[in-house]
Amino acid sequence: MTTLYGYFRSSAAYRVRIALNLKGLAYEQVAVNLVKGEQRAEENLARNPQGLVPVLETDDGTRLTQSLAICEYLEERHPEPALLPADPAGRARVRSLAQLVACEIHPLNNLKVLKYLVHELKLDEAAKLAWYRHWIAEGFTALEARLAGEAATGAFCHGDSPSLADVCLVPQVFNAERFECDLSAYPTIRRIAERCRAMEAFAKAAPGAQPDAG
Amino acid sequence: MTTLYGYFRSSAAYRVRIALNLKGLAYEQVAVNLVKGEQRAEENLARNPQGLVPVLETDDGTRLTQSLAICEYLEERHPEPALLPADPAGRARVRSLAQLVACEIHPLNNLKVLKYLVHELKLDEAAKLAWYRHWIAEGFTALEARLAGEAATGAFCHGDSPSLADVCLVPQVFNAERFECDLSAYPTIRRIAERCRAMEAFAKAAPGAQPDAG
Repeated sequence: MTTLYGYFRSSAAYRVRIALNLKGLAYEQVAVNLVKGEQRAEENLARNPQGLVPVLETDDGTRLTQSLAICEYLEERHPEPALLPADPAGRARVRSLAQLVACEIHPLNNLKVLKYLVHELKLDEAAKLAWYRHWIAEGFTALEARLAGEAATGAFCHGDSPSLADVCLVPQVFNAERFECDLSAYPTIRRIAERCRAMEAFAKAAPGAQPDAG
Repeated sequence: MTTLYGYFRSSAAYRVRIALNLKGLAYEQVAVNLVKGEQRAEENLARNPQGLVPVLETDDGTRLTQSLAICEYLEERHPEPALLPADPAGRARVRSLAQLVACEIHPLNNLKVLKYLVHELKLDEAAKLAWYRHWIAEGFTALEARLAGEAATGAFCHGDSPSLADVCLVPQVFNAERFECDLSAYPTIRRIAERCRAMEAFAKAAPGAQPDAG
């Protein structure tokens, strides 16, 4: 059995749930409550010294970390339906869109960073929100320019089927909405996110649909 | 001709230089001075709406962004010498080590974030350095635990030849040293970085060896 150690509101776990669902793979979920600090429990650190979710445990006991590495593994082991196009330039485009979210936006706004802002830098709620929205706005402005301007964009981020880029986009839009970011300047991002969320694979992966949703 | 738009001290450009060198690919470099803000010049925004380096322009005019996506493209187009092992679990391990650096450490310490800390949050030099060193220490503690504890680690991060994980590790160690982080608690990281830096492909990619080095 494939087991996903995750948390309903973790963006990275959300990405892996979408990828597993798109590929039609069955998995069991074990919740690690990040707000309660369960990721630092001994049991979880044994699975992942970084104390992060997600961890994917495959049926042969292999433990995988880092959401994009997990998605690439799923792509290699279960190629259909494909989350990356066949041509190297297309694959590079999809990966670069995914990494724009995963390396440029998300790392600045995750829970441990927000905690540092509040506890170490003593930022008040308004300054914390300004930080959050700043990195969403900067990243989404670049992402919107690419998606609106590049011919390879289709109904989804790349052509007319969901890819690794959409797997990253949808959880980031969820986060932006949760922090009430103004998304009016990003019509292409909103259009693609809506198209994705109409699919069962995305809907079933949504935070609110998870067993550990608060 | 392959052209790399980069900056001598950009970690992400440094990664791409190492990958190009390891694969023995010739390339021309165009410097984009990040400190002078040249990445926001019209010419550079046309190449990359996010205004970031690196951008790799291939011989057929394709423009690629995001360092890890560029490295994966190079791996697909020029498979030898390989930067990823052949087995899916090994590939996932290498990618997860690379992403531990590229998604967990580096995004928090790049120039635009440091500028936000100083200009928006009005942090003094000591608080900025504390931020920098905090994320290095947190990330390197996790990375050291993995590299020291996992049987797949060899002379390099994965076995006895350099991989995408080493391509990310070496620029991060360079950054940590530049900000005078104490690396005594990370002997495996230091051992592997030294081994890499003894190789010409890494040495020639070092910031100080670039034409635009200040």
